[in-house]
Amino acid sequence: MIDPRARQLVDLCAEHGLTVGTAESLTGGLVAATIVDVPGASAVFRGSVVSYATDLKVTLLGVDRHEIDRSGVVSAAVATAMSAGARSALSVDVALATTGVAGPGAHGGVAAGTVVVAAQVGEIARTRTLALPGDRSAVRSSTVGEVLGLCVEILRERR
Amino acid sequence: MIDPRARQLVDLCAEHGLTVGTAESLTGGLVAATIVDVPGASAVFRGSVVSYATDLKVTLLGVDRHEIDRSGVVSAAVATAMSAGARSALSVDVALATTGVAGPGAHGGVAAGTVVVAAQVGEIARTRTLALPGDRSAVRSSTVGEVLGLCVEILRERR
Repeated sequence: MIDPRARQLVDLCAEHGLTVGTAESLTGGLVAATIVDVPGASAVFRGSVVSYATDLKVTLLGVDRHEIDRSGVVSAAVATAMSAGARSALSVDVALATTGVAGPGAHGGVAAGTVVVAAQVGEIARTRTLALPGDRSAVRSSTVGEVLGLCVEILRERR
Repeated sequence: MIDPRARQLVDLCAEHGLTVGTAESLTGGLVAATIVDVPGASAVFRGSVVSYATDLKVTLLGVDRHEIDRSGVVSAAVATAMSAGARSALSVDVALATTGVAGPGAHGGVAAGTVVVAAQVGEIARTRTLALPGDRSAVRSSTVGEVLGLCVEILRERR
């Protein structure tokens, strides 16, 4: 089943002539896979960096290691840096990023369900910090919806 | 629902003390997301490069552009180079790669459903070329199963 927000994202990017990519941590590629599911996605979608391990956020996305130490890996600062890194590494206009703890249980002192999503469209960057209910799979699935929704919101304001 | 082959992959990697990552084209992150779904995956899974656009296979995975021109992007040579590139870019012991045409319709003279999967465990690299039936979503989903199965096969032989 095609996700309606993914379809809106693909349609809006196509309409504006924008390319899109993702930088994902807890979602592990699910945001990208959800976008790719939309027929016609190949016209706008370029790729994704899934930086599940923290050090890959530094090496592949150029996130500042000191920022991770200072703000924590689940933070607005790191989510923003991941989306900026995706724009550069993937050469895209629009980037979506996710970081958080899917659970079960807390990780590094951060409660399960704590998630930060970021979307960047050209020079406009926005993040949203969430406390999501449910098990690993529910948290991941809600995160996909939240980041797609945030990005569609920004794209609609640009119209 | 947890994919049984993804669970086998995670268990075998954990047993052997191996880390794992993926390089994905047509699957768009779905192999990575399927692995991450397995509880305990974080102990072995490090990340993924989704190089949906051909030029990202060159810039992020170090695939030789001449090899792409010579063999075509859907080829055993390119799938092998993608898995080798993933091992290096993601610093993993085990890499899975997918390239192919999900459809609808042929792309660049390659029929829909034509897929090459590759798996690399240490110095052992193997590819499988497939002609998969069904629509975009079916081709993608079968590809995930095929690449996980190929990798589990190699890991089992190493026991």
